[in-house]
Amino acid sequence: MIGIKSIASYVPAEGLDNYAQGAKFAKDEDFIIGKIGSAFLPRKSDDQETSDLCVEAANALFASNPQLSRESIDALIVVTQNGDEEGLPHTAAIVQDKLGLSTNVAAFDISLGCSGYVYGIYALKGFMEAAGLKNGLLITADPYSKIVDPEDRNTTMLFGDAATATWMGEDAPWQLGKAKFGTDGSGAPHLKVTDGVFFMNGRQVFNFALLKVPAHLHELLDESGLTSADVDAYCIHQGSAAIVDAVARRFEEEPEKFIKDMVETGNTVSSSIPLLLEKHILDSAWKRVALSGFGVGLSWGSALIYRP
Amino acid sequence: MIGIKSIASYVPAEGLDNYAQGAKFAKDEDFIIGKIGSAFLPRKSDDQETSDLCVEAANALFASNPQLSRESIDALIVVTQNGDEEGLPHTAAIVQDKLGLSTNVAAFDISLGCSGYVYGIYALKGFMEAAGLKNGLLITADPYSKIVDPEDRNTTMLFGDAATATWMGEDAPWQLGKAKFGTDGSGAPHLKVTDGVFFMNGRQVFNFALLKVPAHLHELLDESGLTSADVDAYCIHQGSAAIVDAVARRFEEEPEKFIKDMVETGNTVSSSIPLLLEKHILDSAWKRVALSGFGVGLSWGSALIYRP
Repeated sequence: MIGIKSIASYVPAEGLDNYAQGAKFAKDEDFIIGKIGSAFLPRKSDDQETSDLCVEAANALFASNPQLSRESIDALIVVTQNGDEEGLPHTAAIVQDKLGLSTNVAAFDISLGCSGYVYGIYALKGFMEAAGLKNGLLITADPYSKIVDPEDRNTTMLFGDAATATWMGEDAPWQLGKAKFGTDGSGAPHLKVTDGVFFMNGRQVFNFALLKVPAHLHELLDESGLTSADVDAYCIHQGSAAIVDAVARRFEEEPEKFIKDMVETGNTVSSSIPLLLEKHILDSAWKRVALSGFGVGLSWGSALIYRP
Repeated sequence: MIGIKSIASYVPAEGLDNYAQGAKFAKDEDFIIGKIGSAFLPRKSDDQETSDLCVEAANALFASNPQLSRESIDALIVVTQNGDEEGLPHTAAIVQDKLGLSTNVAAFDISLGCSGYVYGIYALKGFMEAAGLKNGLLITADPYSKIVDPEDRNTTMLFGDAATATWMGEDAPWQLGKAKFGTDGSGAPHLKVTDGVFFMNGRQVFNFALLKVPAHLHELLDESGLTSADVDAYCIHQGSAAIVDAVARRFEEEPEKFIKDMVETGNTVSSSIPLLLEKHILDSAWKRVALSGFGVGLSWGSALIYRP
């Protein structure tokens, strides 16, 4: 059974002081930390492409896993909606070349936003098992600095650039359990790009998350025959401090198990959950963790991962 | 085991007379049929979006499979590099809404070009098996009329618009066998979009296909313990008449088993293989068929499908 073996990440050292951004929009520090959740928003440099962020994260993964050779990688998925090129080619092909991987690698992009990591781990595991592949990389990299208008107070204080790389393969310490997914395209206009600029209806997205995510997590537990006491931690998409807090409160049981860690990263889209897993979960003593991603589409996905 | 249950398609009735296009570039009818392969190139109307092509193909699938209810669909993948929107949201979310599917559907786009169907069937099968889903739609829709320059003689005579929908689920008459995949991002510049216009280095792409595809098919058979005598037909991407003929000749064994059918469709990108399967394979008495898709990335994939 293919599972999660290791996660590494790349967070640009350069970025924006979010207190200074807040001051520009007459938002105080309490708002920036309490509602937005991020004092600093990492930003890629202008000469870094999305594929370069992918390469940095993958190289960090290779560095921390010397037993994993580049030649052994036979599957590569990049989750992004802000790839290098205009639609084609896919970013994963460019990453294959920049990483110096074998040409025997199966590579494609998945287009999803903040729900992308939860979908991505099942897509990569399933594809590898269906095709008989052994060592896969799931890379998330969705630099919203490409599309966010710095004058848009609804978005410019929220998003940070980052990338993560997850090694999936056999004999993994973390296995994938039950998952549930959902899509509501009638909400597509609430998060979209027009003429190169991102638009978000923050109130609609907040309401959507609050309506969907706590109930989805309860359904996931119920259908798994589990209660919240069986789950050690909840790693949900870090959309903002306000949304993480509100989902945790609405979930009701043990809100303290919801990890919140975005002060130095911002909302990193599909990278937010793997950043939490890398920092708080993979090397912990915990046995079972629930994930939930939600956003663009509208799309959501919740899943359990566990130590076998 | 998830397999292929049914395929339907949508090919716009309107389009371009390719003989007339040929005359504009001083190409005679022998060239248009013998080298290009298509007398007619279907074109979507200006007010049809990519998602509308998807919806037409899916509705044809529902019409020909009355036992398949919309409510039973729980997975949806759209293979495209020319979706509705600028990067986000993904086209699959829009299709979920336009088709009136349940919001309990797992939906995402895969970004691949002419290799997309071969990857897509393994991605959907694997995702469904990993996530415990039952009825999936794999939709291909990549309308190159959005990006082809009508004055570019290297591309405007080649591409046709189309969409296909494949129902994947349990108890399927066709199962997926061994597959092999490859990616070479060093060839990415040979097929790409810049400032909204598609560029193809036709000679490089032709050479790539001729170098990779016959050898890849031989490896697939060898590693499966099969010979060409065990394969009833080859359905390879219909890039052009010249490329299908050249790959069949280079493959050497039984070139007559390579199906060529693109006179009325043109190169329909990721829809070319499912169009062949719908028309020539699914209801045939044949037992084992080899597929191979190749193109943008560069990316290639070959697979065997068989009746269990």
